[in-house]
Amino acid sequence: GRDCELSCASFGRIMRPDDANIAGNVHGGTILKMIEEAGAIISTRHCNSQAGEPCVAALARVERTDFLSPMCIGEVANVSAEITYTSRHSVEVQVNVMSENILTGAKKLTNKATLWYVPLSLKNVNKVLEVPPIQYARKEQEDEGKKRYEEQKLDRLETKQRNGDVILPVINPEPQTVGYSQSSLIHLVGPSDCTLLGFVHGGVTMKLMDEVAGIVAARHCKTNIVTASVDAINFHEKIKKGCVITVSGRMTFTSNKSMEIEVFVDADPFVDEPRERYRAVSAFFTYVSLSKEGKPLPVPQLLTETEDEKRRFEEGKGRYLQTKAKRQAQMQQAAQ
Amino acid sequence: GRDCELSCASFGRIMRPDDANIAGNVHGGTILKMIEEAGAIISTRHCNSQAGEPCVAALARVERTDFLSPMCIGEVANVSAEITYTSRHSVEVQVNVMSENILTGAKKLTNKATLWYVPLSLKNVNKVLEVPPIQYARKEQEDEGKKRYEEQKLDRLETKQRNGDVILPVINPEPQTVGYSQSSLIHLVGPSDCTLLGFVHGGVTMKLMDEVAGIVAARHCKTNIVTASVDAINFHEKIKKGCVITVSGRMTFTSNKSMEIEVFVDADPFVDEPRERYRAVSAFFTYVSLSKEGKPLPVPQLLTETEDEKRRFEEGKGRYLQTKAKRQAQMQQAAQ
Amino acid sequence: GRDCELSCASFGRIMRPDDANIAGNVHGGTILKMIEEAGAIISTRHCNSQAGEPCVAALARVERTDFLSPMCIGEVANVSAEITYTSRHSVEVQVNVMSENILTGAKKLTNKATLWYVPLSLKNVNKVLEVPPIQYARKEQEDEGKKRYEEQKLDRLETKQRNGDVILPVINPEPQTVGYSQSSLIHLVGPSDCTLLGFVHGGVTMKLMDEVAGIVAARHCKTNIVTASVDAINFHEKIKKGCVITVSGRMTFTSNKSMEIEVFVDADPFVDEPRERYRAVSAFFTYVSLSKEGKPLPVPQLLTETEDEKRRFEEGKGRYLQTKAKRQAQMQQAAQ
Repeated sequence: GRDCELSCASFGRIMRPDDANIAGNVHGGTILKMIEEAGAIISTRHCNSQAGEPCVAALARVERTDFLSPMCIGEVANVSAEITYTSRHSVEVQVNVMSENILTGAKKLTNKATLWYVPLSLKNVNKVLEVPPIQYARKEQEDEGKKRYEEQKLDRLETKQRNGDVILPVINPEPQTVGYSQSSLIHLVGPSDCTLLGFVHGGVTMKLMDEVAGIVAARHCKTNIVTASVDAINFHEKIKKGCVITVSGRMTFTSNKSMEIEVFVDADPFVDEPRERYRAVSAFFTYVSLSKEGKPLPVPQLLTETEDEKRRFEEGKGRYLQTKAKRQAQMQQAAQ
Repeated sequence: GRDCELSCASFGRIMRPDDANIAGNVHGGTILKMIEEAGAIISTRHCNSQAGEPCVAALARVERTDFLSPMCIGEVANVSAEITYTSRHSVEVQVNVMSENILTGAKKLTNKATLWYVPLSLKNVNKVLEVPPIQYARKEQEDEGKKRYEEQKLDRLETKQRNGDVILPVINPEPQTVGYSQSSLIHLVGPSDCTLLGFVHGGVTMKLMDEVAGIVAARHCKTNIVTASVDAINFHEKIKKGCVITVSGRMTFTSNKSMEIEVFVDADPFVDEPRERYRAVSAFFTYVSLSKEGKPLPVPQLLTETEDEKRRFEEGKGRYLQTKAKRQAQMQQAAQ
Repeated sequence: GRDCELSCASFGRIMRPDDANIAGNVHGGTILKMIEEAGAIISTRHCNSQAGEPCVAALARVERTDFLSPMCIGEVANVSAEITYTSRHSVEVQVNVMSENILTGAKKLTNKATLWYVPLSLKNVNKVLEVPPIQYARKEQEDEGKKRYEEQKLDRLETKQRNGDVILPVINPEPQTVGYSQSSLIHLVGPSDCTLLGFVHGGVTMKLMDEVAGIVAARHCKTNIVTASVDAINFHEKIKKGCVITVSGRMTFTSNKSMEIEVFVDADPFVDEPRERYRAVSAFFTYVSLSKEGKPLPVPQLLTETEDEKRRFEEGKGRYLQTKAKRQAQMQQAAQ
């Protein structure tokens, strides 16, 4: 309808060989990048819908998202995004991704994601502007949105402290240890990676994170791996054009059929800026290993050596059990 | 509505620096590529909508299209596509592209295009399948579609003969001559350029053609140039993955404020194939030169030397005058 | 360690279908581009490590490099770079590339490269700044570095004169002649091709050079070809954003199992610049032809026709024999 023109959007794109791994499964990072682009478009559009200072919506947070079914080369990814809540200074966008096999017509839900954007002034990037409120069909929608808003705000405050850890190189590591599979890449931030404000699109960062996490997972289990889920990611710090970013990943936990990888993004404003290298983002990615028939394979157990590794393993186990419990609760609820 | 799910689609994407020239104007080729991708998606989807042999829709022809207003970096290109006619073996798709400034909300029609696709069997690329008929809201729509179908069929048959010409190299050419600005590029066809059948997407070819034509135009007038229109293009011959394609352009005609460039695409199946180099596509692109304020600038007159160049100039003048007359007739009709 | 953070870097990237030819072998140009990016990052980082004018390290020269074993799609390219010598105005970087099959864990050395960078002021691109000296573990390292520095300096001065040759078009050439396989491409320099200073990354140029050389090689022998080595390349002239570059290649020499191709890069500052077209870089690439099993195939002999072609063939033969002698001397030394 007319209302939707402003607060909804849908996009599609054919998946190409470069979007996928050699088994033909589209990278989770490709999907995250598409999701973020859709979110950035509709929240920027919405935040500029009333007369006032022009602004660009910057990604502040992505909620935990599960990859429900793999997408393949040649399929069309249909991304539909909708604004579902606005606070004074932030916009919540919900995005659904459907994979469509245009030969058979088969459609499958690939994932659902929730993203939070903040409008930054085009003239002064440090100024957060006000968000025009949306209209809710029912009062409950607003209340539920407000609850989600409060929850994510709390989580963002808590995770501010987590950063600071570094990944140290290991010489001649043993297979299945943390040091054996840890990996990093560097990327020089180019103009096409950036928004109109000259800062890296959140989606570009997430794609690089997934790339590193995927290498860590493949090194550990030496099979075809796919992204199963991504924990909530908070984007505390912007990354500017011309920075070098270092994306590092290490395995923290393995269950029977999954691996958890922690990924750090550090930005190095190495030219023209007095600033030191800083941690821009960190997140946990979960991967599964698939057989040629697409069935989940057992994952070799991660060998932890240091006290820190053992602690991180236990923390990962905590997150794993919590997610499992939540999912079971949801399934029971759905079954009732 | 339910009907539209099959026969319509809309897509959006933010325009990046890599999509544009240094003046910030999005390349016509970028837009042609998006248009073709939208058309390929909905016609492939439609042709597979009934049980039967799976197929991929291959681009057979693009009707003449005008670029009505320039698009800029940071704007969102909204592409909407609809199937408007089906013959027994072909699908007509109409695509509209709107540029949207998400900061101001301003939207402008960038161009309208009409494309014809033919369904090729996934198992046997030389077998053209039948197209499921669409439902028309009014009988007139079907009649008008049939008329367009017959017209393009005639034109496709006629242009089959035009090919065969080659662009000969010129040593130490004088400025403003044909030899001075003529240009060519070669491109090795990679996996991401191709459809599921392993043949180059029509949109990829058109993007390369626009790239060469733009270089010819810029070499001739040494200013900022933009694509103004593209004449009807017929895709007689498929181009396979692994081919080297040579895309060559030469100026054929200049009016006071526009340049016409003829572009040829030759494919060289150089590995593992007994076939000789062949002409895959040819087309005429029209460019205008813009000042820093976006106003059209006068174009230096093309100096023709050989008999062939003079003949091609006269032919170009004929096309130019015909288009001008058609446009005036349309404006008069619209004014009535 | 702490020291290495400044003067070393290592990272990995998965090789994608677009990085490789249809036989699945990663293009030499893809590897050269990664090597150069790593070098540019660590030398820019090093040159900005002391307070002073901000600068960007620009590639001045790449030493001869051999491609020791082919890399394939799906493998991880591990690039590690280290600063090994600094003169007053230049930085020497040594880069190793290992291919890693993450499924089997097998790692192979793909190549070793040495690059020289010069720090250019961010405010005034024509001003070369001073390089902070590095610490050497042993005095010998400094002496050997100094020797390498003097040698490359001499070679750079000598090759300043070599440029000036052009590739003339040939009409209806016979197979196996020079004219038959010679090729050229044009490329419009876009924002993603450039450093913060607005000049083309050396790695982007080398990738295009390898693309043309590969097409020349494939046209000559019509089989799967791979880059075997690249002679030292000097970057005498910068190429600015918005230029059109013409990259041309012609075969100069064939041995039983290898082909030497000379590649020229000419820049055409065609908009808004008073400057004429100029030669920016030139280099010799050596290719081998591989069977489906990866074994070297015999190469058809190059047919030389003109005096110039015969002279270049002899010069190429000289380079070939010199390289062969050097390699045998190294092997004998290693065997002792």
